[in-house]
Amino acid sequence: MGMVGGGRGAFIGGVHRMAAALDGQIELVCGAFSSDPERSRLSGEDFHLPANRVYRSYAEMITIERHLPDERMDFVAIVTPNHLHFAPAKMALEHGFHVVCDKPLCFNLAEATELVALVESTGLLFALTHNYTGYPLVKQARAMIHAGELGQIRKVVVEYPQGWLSTKLEDTEQKQADWRTDPTRSGMAGAMGDIGTHAENLAEYITGLKITELCADLTAFVPGRQLDDDGNVLLRFNNGAKGILHASQIAAGEENDLNIRVYGTRGGLHWRQLEPNTLVVRWLDKPTELRRTGVGELYPATQAHTRIPAGHPEGYLEAFANIYRNVAYCLQARLLGQEPDPLYLDFPTVHDGLRGMQFIERVVASNQSQEKWTMF
Amino acid sequence: MGMVGGGRGAFIGGVHRMAAALDGQIELVCGAFSSDPERSRLSGEDFHLPANRVYRSYAEMITIERHLPDERMDFVAIVTPNHLHFAPAKMALEHGFHVVCDKPLCFNLAEATELVALVESTGLLFALTHNYTGYPLVKQARAMIHAGELGQIRKVVVEYPQGWLSTKLEDTEQKQADWRTDPTRSGMAGAMGDIGTHAENLAEYITGLKITELCADLTAFVPGRQLDDDGNVLLRFNNGAKGILHASQIAAGEENDLNIRVYGTRGGLHWRQLEPNTLVVRWLDKPTELRRTGVGELYPATQAHTRIPAGHPEGYLEAFANIYRNVAYCLQARLLGQEPDPLYLDFPTVHDGLRGMQFIERVVASNQSQEKWTMF
Amino acid sequence: MGMVGGGRGAFIGGVHRMAAALDGQIELVCGAFSSDPERSRLSGEDFHLPANRVYRSYAEMITIERHLPDERMDFVAIVTPNHLHFAPAKMALEHGFHVVCDKPLCFNLAEATELVALVESTGLLFALTHNYTGYPLVKQARAMIHAGELGQIRKVVVEYPQGWLSTKLEDTEQKQADWRTDPTRSGMAGAMGDIGTHAENLAEYITGLKITELCADLTAFVPGRQLDDDGNVLLRFNNGAKGILHASQIAAGEENDLNIRVYGTRGGLHWRQLEPNTLVVRWLDKPTELRRTGVGELYPATQAHTRIPAGHPEGYLEAFANIYRNVAYCLQARLLGQEPDPLYLDFPTVHDGLRGMQFIERVVASNQSQEKWTMF
Amino acid sequence: MGMVGGGRGAFIGGVHRMAAALDGQIELVCGAFSSDPERSRLSGEDFHLPANRVYRSYAEMITIERHLPDERMDFVAIVTPNHLHFAPAKMALEHGFHVVCDKPLCFNLAEATELVALVESTGLLFALTHNYTGYPLVKQARAMIHAGELGQIRKVVVEYPQGWLSTKLEDTEQKQADWRTDPTRSGMAGAMGDIGTHAENLAEYITGLKITELCADLTAFVPGRQLDDDGNVLLRFNNGAKGILHASQIAAGEENDLNIRVYGTRGGLHWRQLEPNTLVVRWLDKPTELRRTGVGELYPATQAHTRIPAGHPEGYLEAFANIYRNVAYCLQARLLGQEPDPLYLDFPTVHDGLRGMQFIERVVASNQSQEKWTMF
Repeated sequence: MGMVGGGRGAFIGGVHRMAAALDGQIELVCGAFSSDPERSRLSGEDFHLPANRVYRSYAEMITIERHLPDERMDFVAIVTPNHLHFAPAKMALEHGFHVVCDKPLCFNLAEATELVALVESTGLLFALTHNYTGYPLVKQARAMIHAGELGQIRKVVVEYPQGWLSTKLEDTEQKQADWRTDPTRSGMAGAMGDIGTHAENLAEYITGLKITELCADLTAFVPGRQLDDDGNVLLRFNNGAKGILHASQIAAGEENDLNIRVYGTRGGLHWRQLEPNTLVVRWLDKPTELRRTGVGELYPATQAHTRIPAGHPEGYLEAFANIYRNVAYCLQARLLGQEPDPLYLDFPTVHDGLRGMQFIERVVASNQSQEKWTMF
Repeated sequence: MGMVGGGRGAFIGGVHRMAAALDGQIELVCGAFSSDPERSRLSGEDFHLPANRVYRSYAEMITIERHLPDERMDFVAIVTPNHLHFAPAKMALEHGFHVVCDKPLCFNLAEATELVALVESTGLLFALTHNYTGYPLVKQARAMIHAGELGQIRKVVVEYPQGWLSTKLEDTEQKQADWRTDPTRSGMAGAMGDIGTHAENLAEYITGLKITELCADLTAFVPGRQLDDDGNVLLRFNNGAKGILHASQIAAGEENDLNIRVYGTRGGLHWRQLEPNTLVVRWLDKPTELRRTGVGELYPATQAHTRIPAGHPEGYLEAFANIYRNVAYCLQARLLGQEPDPLYLDFPTVHDGLRGMQFIERVVASNQSQEKWTMF
Repeated sequence: MGMVGGGRGAFIGGVHRMAAALDGQIELVCGAFSSDPERSRLSGEDFHLPANRVYRSYAEMITIERHLPDERMDFVAIVTPNHLHFAPAKMALEHGFHVVCDKPLCFNLAEATELVALVESTGLLFALTHNYTGYPLVKQARAMIHAGELGQIRKVVVEYPQGWLSTKLEDTEQKQADWRTDPTRSGMAGAMGDIGTHAENLAEYITGLKITELCADLTAFVPGRQLDDDGNVLLRFNNGAKGILHASQIAAGEENDLNIRVYGTRGGLHWRQLEPNTLVVRWLDKPTELRRTGVGELYPATQAHTRIPAGHPEGYLEAFANIYRNVAYCLQARLLGQEPDPLYLDFPTVHDGLRGMQFIERVVASNQSQEKWTMF
Repeated sequence: MGMVGGGRGAFIGGVHRMAAALDGQIELVCGAFSSDPERSRLSGEDFHLPANRVYRSYAEMITIERHLPDERMDFVAIVTPNHLHFAPAKMALEHGFHVVCDKPLCFNLAEATELVALVESTGLLFALTHNYTGYPLVKQARAMIHAGELGQIRKVVVEYPQGWLSTKLEDTEQKQADWRTDPTRSGMAGAMGDIGTHAENLAEYITGLKITELCADLTAFVPGRQLDDDGNVLLRFNNGAKGILHASQIAAGEENDLNIRVYGTRGGLHWRQLEPNTLVVRWLDKPTELRRTGVGELYPATQAHTRIPAGHPEGYLEAFANIYRNVAYCLQARLLGQEPDPLYLDFPTVHDGLRGMQFIERVVASNQSQEKWTMF
C-alpha cells in the first residue's frame, strides 16, 4: 500500500493505516504523505519507511513505483481532503494501480462520473471507505432484510448527529474543521457531504432499496459558515417505503451517533454505531431480541467480519479494517488468478461513491427548490 | 368528578380514573360510562357508585347533577372517542361545569374554535390530557430551556413510533383500533391525530417555541386503511430553529417510544417516555449528565411534580395524575377564592387543544400539497 | 383502611395512601397519623377526613372503630418505624382487624414469632409490604423459573445499593435517617434490616429457593454510626445453588438500585428496579430477549399485575398498589364468602416477615462469627 | 516479535498478533506456533513469514534467533496454555529476550516466584497481558481515584460473569474449553484462574489498593468438571474497604461481562467492559456523569491510550494493543538509551503476574478452609 495524504497532524490517515495493518495482510510500503515534502519526509520516518519510498508528491510516487520490480505498492490509499481525491485516483488508475479512497468520492459529480468510467475501463479495484458498512451487525441487518425476516420494508429512519461544529471551529487552528467548512475544498455541501453521505450509503446498503425522491431543508446555523451544518431530509424509496434522513454537526453534545431504524411488515431493527456490537430486533409478535456479534446464529456475512468472540467489543477500527481486509483478499485472489470469495467482495465501490455525489447534488438542489419533491 | 365514557372494555377511561384517584384529591362521584345504558350501569357497579349517580347519558348527568345540592360533581371528565368530545364538553361548559377532556380536543377545527370561545366566555377550567407533559423531567427540560441553559435552540427532533397498527387490527374486534382508523370517529387524520398531536404538543411545550411552517408526507401503509398510519414532517420554528417530527403506528415492534431531542448553542437534551425518570443532558464542553427525578438540584416545577425519592420509578399514571392533581388544586383555590400556586397552573388547556387541531389540519393540507412549505 | 403513622413529614405513609387509592378499591376512612395528637389532627385534615375519624393513638382508633356500625375500617395499615409495628399489629389482630404492615415485620425475632402465632390463630389477613415483589416482571421472572424455563438454578446475585447514608445524615434533621440508624428504633441491623431484607425476600420469592447458609461481612463505614450501613453476604441455597447478596447505604451516588440476576442450566435473567418494565432474559443458545410488561406472551401472574399497555411505564407506586389491590380483592372475596382468585393471593405475608427477621438475626450472627458458614 | 503458540485453531494468538500490528510499531518476524511442527509451518505461511523464521519449537527459535545479526526478534510473545508459559519465558529471559506473556503468569506459585527473580536479575522487560487494564476509561477510573476525586474508597464490587462453560463443553472438540478445565494444564483453579485473576487485577489496578483478606466459595457446577466454574469471594482491602469479587463461567447467557464498581466517600464509578467507552461516574451531590473516551477533559493517561475521536468506539483489540504499544515504546526508548515516557510504563508486569498466582492459591485455600478469613 502506498498512501496519499495522512501525514503528521492528519486524522483519517492514521485510521487508514491502523485499519490496513490490523489483519497482517497489508503493508504500508511507501507514501506521499503531504503536499509539503518535508512533512511527508518526517511522516515517513514516523512510519519506519525507508527514505527512498517517501515521495514528495503522489505523481512522483505513482511514476516511480510503477517501475519498481518486486516490492512496488499494490494499491494507492487516498486520504486527502475531498478536492484532492480525484487527481491521484485518476492517475493511479491510469497507471494500473488499484485504489482505496476516502469518502466522499470526490469534489463534484463530473469527477465522479469520470472515475466510474475509468474504473470500468481499467477493470481495477476501487474501494471507497464508507467504513460504517464494515460493522458486522450492519452486515447482519442487511442479511436479515435481504432474507425477508422483516417482511416488506415500510419505513427507514437514519440519523447522523454530531456536535463538534456547534461553534465556529474553523476560525481556530482546527484542521479538520477548516477544510470541511470550505466550499473550495469540501464541495457544495458541508454536513451533508461529510456525514450525510454515510447515512445515505448506510440506508441503501442495509435495506437494499434505492432512494427515488427527497425533500431537503439544509441550514448553516453557525453565523458566517458557508456550508450547511445541519440537514433534514424526507425520503421516498423505490418500493414505496418512506423515510427520514437527518445529519447535523451542530447537535450540541452529540459525538458521532450514526444510527438507523428500519421497519417492515413483520418487525423492525435498530443499529447504533455507538454500541455497534448490538443489533436490536423487534418483532410484531415476540420479545425484542438483542443480536450480538460473536454468537453462533448469525449470517455468514456477519461471522466473516467478526474477529473475536462474543463479549469482546469490536469497534470503529475493526469495521474500517474489514474494508481493507476484503480488498486484500480480493487482490490476493486476483494475484492467484482465482475468484474471490463472494463474502469478501462486500466493500463500497466507485459506484457507491457516484451515488453519494449524486445525493449531495440532489440534496442541495432540493434545498434550493420550492418544489416538494426532488427526484434522486 | 363525573365521567363521560370509560365503561367496561374501554382503555383510557381506566387511566383517567387511576390518575384522578392517586393523590386522594378527587373522587369519582357519578358517570355516564357508555352510550349503552346497561353497560353504563354495570360499569358504575364496578366503581362502587350508588345507582342514582350512574346516568344513561351525559346529557342526563349534566342536567341532574347541576341541581344536586351538596355533593354534585365539580367537573366532567370526557374520555370518549374523538367525535364524541365536543357535545358533552359544550354542554358541560354551558351548564357551569369545568372540564377535563382527553386529546385530541375534538373532531375538527370548527368544534375546537367554538370550545375555545366557550371556555373564554364562561371562565371555567378546561384541561386537556396531553399527559406526557405531566412527566417531571419534561418539566425539567422545559425549565432548563426557559432558563437558557442550552443557549439558543437550533434543532428539535421529536418522534412517536408505535407498531400496534402494523396489521389491519381494525378488522378484528379490537375496539381501540376500530375507531382510531375510522374517519367518521377519529377525524381527518389517523396517527397524526392520535399521537402526532402529542409530539407536536411536547415539542412546543418543552421548547417554548412555535412551529411556523411544516412539510408533511403521510402514508396509509396497511392496505385498505383510510387514515394515515405513518407520517414524516419537516418543521420550522418561529426562532429559526429547524426540526423533524415523525409518528407512526406501523413501526413494527415499537411500543410507545415518544421521545424528543433538543439542541441549542450550548448543549442538548434527550427525554424518552420509555425511561421517563432520566433526562440526558449533553454539553459542548463537559461530560454528559443524567438528570433524575427525586434528586435535589431540580427546578421547582420538576420537584412539584415528583412524588417519591430518587430511584423509585414514577411512570405514565403518575404523569397523568399530575394533570388531575393540578386541576384539583386549582379548583380548590377557586373554591377558597384564592389564586392558585403558579406551579399548579401548569396543565394543557383548550388552547393547546386548538393548536393540536390546527396541526392536524395543516399536516393533512401539507400532505396533499405540492408546495414544499405549508404555514402553521 | 385506617392508618397508623404516616402523618405530615413522613415518607412511606404517603406511599401507602397512594398505593391504596390507585385502583379505587380502598378508601382511607380513619387514622392515628402521629404520636403527636395535633400532628395527627392536621394530617387528617390534609386527607379530607372527618374530625371524628382522626384519632390520638392507634389504641383509641382500634377501640372505637371496632364498635362503629357500618363504615368501620376493614383493616389497619401500619407505617410507623420498625419498633412501633408490633404493638398496633398485635392489638389490631386481637380486635379482629386485618393488617397491612410495612417492612421489616417488627423489631426482633420474638415479636415476629408472636405475630405469626396471632395471625395463625385469628385467621386474619396479614400483608407485609415487600413492595418490590409487586412488580409485574418480578412475577414474570418467578413464573419463568417456576415453569423451569431457566433449568436448574445455579447462581443468584442480588444487590441493593443506595448512597443516601454516605454521610452522617442522622446528625441533621433528616427524619428517615434518624430512626433507621438508631438501634433502639430500627433493631439490630441497619442497612441489612432496611434493605437487605428486601433483597433476601426478592431472591427467595423469584427463585422459589430457600437460603440455608450464609457468610456475612457487615460494616458501619460512617464514623460514629452504630448500625451497619453496608453488608456483603455469601449465600448457599437449599438446592445447591450459590449466591451473593449485598446491600449498602454508602454506595455513593446510587439511588435505589435493587436488582437481581438468576442463572440456571438453560439461561439467565436480570431484573432491575430502576427499569422495572424490562426483564432481560439470556439463553445458552439464542439471542437475549427483552421481556416487557403489557405484551401478550406473559404469564397470567404478570398480566394480572399490569394495568396499562406496553410502552406506558409503570413504576414503584403501581407495584406497591398491587399488594393493596390483592389484599382488597381477597378481603372482598371473604366478605362475599368466596375463595379469592389464586392470582390475588400473591402478596407477602407474616411468614415472609418472620423470614426477614430471621435473616437479620442470622446475618448479624454471621458477621460476629469466625466460622465461615452460619445456618439460616 | 517472535511468537510461541498461537497457530491455526488457537484463539488468543490471533488477538496478540492483531494487537501487536495495530499501531505499526511491532512486526511479527518469527514464531514457533505449535508443538506440532507441521502446524507451525502452515501457520507461518498464513502470516506471510519466510520459512526459515518458522521454528519447530520455542527452544529452537530462541537458540537460533539470538544469533541472528540484524533482524532478530526483539521480544518473545507467549500465547500458549498456562502450563506452557514458564519454560519459554524462562528460556527467553535467560537468553536476553524481553517477554510478553499471556495471563495468568504460569502454572503455580513456584514458577511465578522464579520468573520474578529472573526478570529482576536480568533487567529485561516482562509484560503480562491483563488486557482489560489497557482500556482508556480504566486508566481514567484509576486516575480519578488516585487524584482523590471519589474520596476515600469504601467498597469495591468486581464481577466477571461468562456463560460459555454452562455445559460440559470440554467433552466436545472445543479446544479452549479443553485445556481450561484440565488441572494438568490450567493449574489449581478454573474460572478463578482464567478470569478471576483479571477481576483481581482490575480491582487492584483501578483502586490502587491491595486485597488483604478474602473468603471464597468455589463450585464446579457442571457434573464431572474438575475445576471451579464459579466463585464468590468476599474481599477486605488494606485501607479498610470491603468488597466482592465473583467470577463465573456458568452464568448462562452472559458473554464476557467484566465490570467494576468502586464507591468512595464522595462518589462512585462504574466501568463495564461490554460498553468500554463509557465510564459512569456518580456523585453524592450532583448529577451522574458519563465520561467518554476522546473527549478533552480526560486525564493524560486516558488520552494517551485513546486513538480516535469521541464517538468512534474502541474495543477489546485496541485495549490489548495498548499493552503492546507501550511495550514497543519502552523498547524503543531502551534502544535509544532514553527513559521511556512514564505514560508508557503503564502495563502489567511479572509482579502483577505473581500477585495473580498468589490470588489463585489463596482463593483455593480459602475455599477449602472453615475459617472465615484467609490472608492474602
